[in-house]
Amino acid sequence: MDKLHLSEHISQQFNEELEEVRSKVLQMGGVVEEQLNKAVKALITGSEELAAEVVQNDARVNALEVEIDDDCTRIVARRQPAASDLRLVMAVIRTINDLERIGDEVKRVAKTVGDELRGTLEEDVRQELEHMGEQVSRMLTSVLDAFARTDPDAALAVSKADRKVDVKYKAITRQLISYMMQDHSSIPVILNVLWAARALERIGDRCQNIAEYVIYLVIGKNVRYASIDEIMAELEAD
Amino acid sequence: MDKLHLSEHISQQFNEELEEVRSKVLQMGGVVEEQLNKAVKALITGSEELAAEVVQNDARVNALEVEIDDDCTRIVARRQPAASDLRLVMAVIRTINDLERIGDEVKRVAKTVGDELRGTLEEDVRQELEHMGEQVSRMLTSVLDAFARTDPDAALAVSKADRKVDVKYKAITRQLISYMMQDHSSIPVILNVLWAARALERIGDRCQNIAEYVIYLVIGKNVRYASIDEIMAELEAD
Repeated sequence: MDKLHLSEHISQQFNEELEEVRSKVLQMGGVVEEQLNKAVKALITGSEELAAEVVQNDARVNALEVEIDDDCTRIVARRQPAASDLRLVMAVIRTINDLERIGDEVKRVAKTVGDELRGTLEEDVRQELEHMGEQVSRMLTSVLDAFARTDPDAALAVSKADRKVDVKYKAITRQLISYMMQDHSSIPVILNVLWAARALERIGDRCQNIAEYVIYLVIGKNVRYASIDEIMAELEAD
Repeated sequence: MDKLHLSEHISQQFNEELEEVRSKVLQMGGVVEEQLNKAVKALITGSEELAAEVVQNDARVNALEVEIDDDCTRIVARRQPAASDLRLVMAVIRTINDLERIGDEVKRVAKTVGDELRGTLEEDVRQELEHMGEQVSRMLTSVLDAFARTDPDAALAVSKADRKVDVKYKAITRQLISYMMQDHSSIPVILNVLWAARALERIGDRCQNIAEYVIYLVIGKNVRYASIDEIMAELEAD
């Protein structure tokens, strides 16, 4: 076996390791998506059983993060990857951290589902929350897809979608505050709904973070504090 | 210059780079501490001027994160550090991420300070918030100190302190809800105070994250989902 062959072999093995990590991230993302959809359904239907399931399953999300994190650290230590591969590993470490935090927010949504909530959600609030849940769930699906395909344009679209979630969140908050002012015996219940809406809004923010890592993978520049216009200019220059 | 000398020289340079990164983290931590203390003061005194200053200065925190993050990526790519040094670089990347997010929460606290808040805080709420602000500020100081000295025992103490912040947060929330129920015209103002308290509580959580990275640096194991007892057992076994 000559040296070149050996080096190709090592590089092939390294690629396989990277691919395995990427596919584990998508697996983790899939679990988080499922958790999110269940939590929103529990919130809308008031199903405590479903909510309890979500709370219990969060441990799976955490375990996946620790596992992938260990994989990444091992890869960096053993393979000493060059710049572009290192960027991928860094993006993975950040992505799984955000996925894990999305899992935490999902758990918060599930925890707001309780006895006191059942039957007290006005139909219009229920619809707004359901709609917000769908928006956020679509963001998560799209950003995982953008990650899988390393597609900066798809990632940019996710970044833009977050603005809509913010608008929806503000509308729901205003509506809930006016309910609280009309009927102050409902305050503790409505506050719970507010926390749930806020958790959904935070999930949107974290999807946006992941979108930025995908863009960073492609243009190799930290874009977290750049405007969408600046990012687009970078992508066009690439 | 013989080979050994050269290698020592390179390693010496590497150590200097690592030291520089560490000292930049402490500098960033100092800025965040100052921001936190100002924001709490603005909240307690209702000073919009101070609050505006905090909002404006957040850009400094963000810029420091990007700078240190770039330093770390460059170090890993160029120096290809071995396991223990790599662990340090990883801990730095995570720490500055949490510091930046603490900066965001501080900004959220500052943003709740406005016209409508002035003069409306009951004295007891003011005192409770001030106390909570002090607790969180002490946590931040202690965890930066634990990071500077790589002291896992000090880090563990921070982890424990977070429980007290959580208890205080729950007490404040209960108090605020009862105010809202007594006087529902105060709801929008009190909600603002609730958001501020929640932001402080989140800052405590993030200090706890940083404490965990310090412990990880020492025992080389991801401790995020371990109980305090388990961590203590690990530290004793070390």
